[in-house]
Amino acid sequence: MPISELPAFQPLVIFGVLLVLKMGAVAFVTANARRKAKVVLNPEDTKVNPGSHAENEEAAVTLRAKRAHLNDVENIPAFLVLALLMTLTGCSATAGWIYFGVYFVARTLHTVFYLNAVQPWRTVAFFVGQLAQLGIMVQLLIAVL
Amino acid sequence: MPISELPAFQPLVIFGVLLVLKMGAVAFVTANARRKAKVVLNPEDTKVNPGSHAENEEAAVTLRAKRAHLNDVENIPAFLVLALLMTLTGCSATAGWIYFGVYFVARTLHTVFYLNAVQPWRTVAFFVGQLAQLGIMVQLLIAVL
Amino acid sequence: MPISELPAFQPLVIFGVLLVLKMGAVAFVTANARRKAKVVLNPEDTKVNPGSHAENEEAAVTLRAKRAHLNDVENIPAFLVLALLMTLTGCSATAGWIYFGVYFVARTLHTVFYLNAVQPWRTVAFFVGQLAQLGIMVQLLIAVL
Repeated sequence: MPISELPAFQPLVIFGVLLVLKMGAVAFVTANARRKAKVVLNPEDTKVNPGSHAENEEAAVTLRAKRAHLNDVENIPAFLVLALLMTLTGCSATAGWIYFGVYFVARTLHTVFYLNAVQPWRTVAFFVGQLAQLGIMVQLLIAVL
Repeated sequence: MPISELPAFQPLVIFGVLLVLKMGAVAFVTANARRKAKVVLNPEDTKVNPGSHAENEEAAVTLRAKRAHLNDVENIPAFLVLALLMTLTGCSATAGWIYFGVYFVARTLHTVFYLNAVQPWRTVAFFVGQLAQLGIMVQLLIAVL
Repeated sequence: MPISELPAFQPLVIFGVLLVLKMGAVAFVTANARRKAKVVLNPEDTKVNPGSHAENEEAAVTLRAKRAHLNDVENIPAFLVLALLMTLTGCSATAGWIYFGVYFVARTLHTVFYLNAVQPWRTVAFFVGQLAQLGIMVQLLIAVL
């Protein structure tokens, strides 16, 4: 059976692509916040973004988008590998749609809540995503042990 | 042969899951250090962690755990992909147990040494992990060239 | 057909290994800049790098290499997973050589341009890499929809 016919390959690809696009969107929000604030991190960046140079971004208005993005970077790549491993065990398409879908929705809400400073819902969304990932890890261990 | 019956799939899943759990544990140490220090990064975070707001975390006590976590984020996702690629080449289970196991132990020691400020052992643990990853890269290149 | 005989497996492994080596090289540039500047981040690091301790790296000379590295960390792991997924769909070796090769060259130029403060070419290189990744995402969606 070709790998791409593994039952959960379709939800894996769809939510994998959506997650990477979502990560990229947050990076774009950060870059755009820098552009609007006319703040650049490197002196040479004034060539692509007319503005003043701020050596220390900590002081800049872009910090919120940057933190939301960093949280994605800390979590999404490892999730993508775990989701692929679960798909390779031959798990059902339904399991893929549920686990990967819940994770994607939770991470998207996490970003929306982060950018708009909505607590405690950001923390709730974070833990729902972690719960989906924990479920995947349990499924993986059951499959190999 | 189903993919999940590839010889090294079992050690890949076991050490992959353990590495992601270890990364999550360091993230938890960071969050917990923030909670204990009653320092939050975003004003709205006082809703989940009663404490004062510190715009610039660089000044906070949480910096050590955060750096240990960042080092994981810089290294572990790429390792997981390389380890999966080596597994897909059909390498032996023994190779999987050794390469992935050495990497996992080295990264765990790296974290322990980082959190407890133990040098030069932290650097030694880092390079042992890098050596295991270099071995995987050599195996991969041998397999395809 | 063994997975390692998938048409694009060879370019995937070659450019995957090269990308991880490139990331590591930037990390080494950062570490080396710290060593030369005699600046260490953790007090205990003076045991491996004789120098003075700077709690806040933002002030240090290593910031440029660190940002180039962080940009890699934000982008390369997710790319590796997408490239592997495209390979698993059974795409042609030619597609692999082109998409993965363009991405690798673009990211290498991005790093070179970042370390040497060359704008707007750094931004151009970044977007060429993103374009290659976008192409992979389109191929993936076509393959599963």
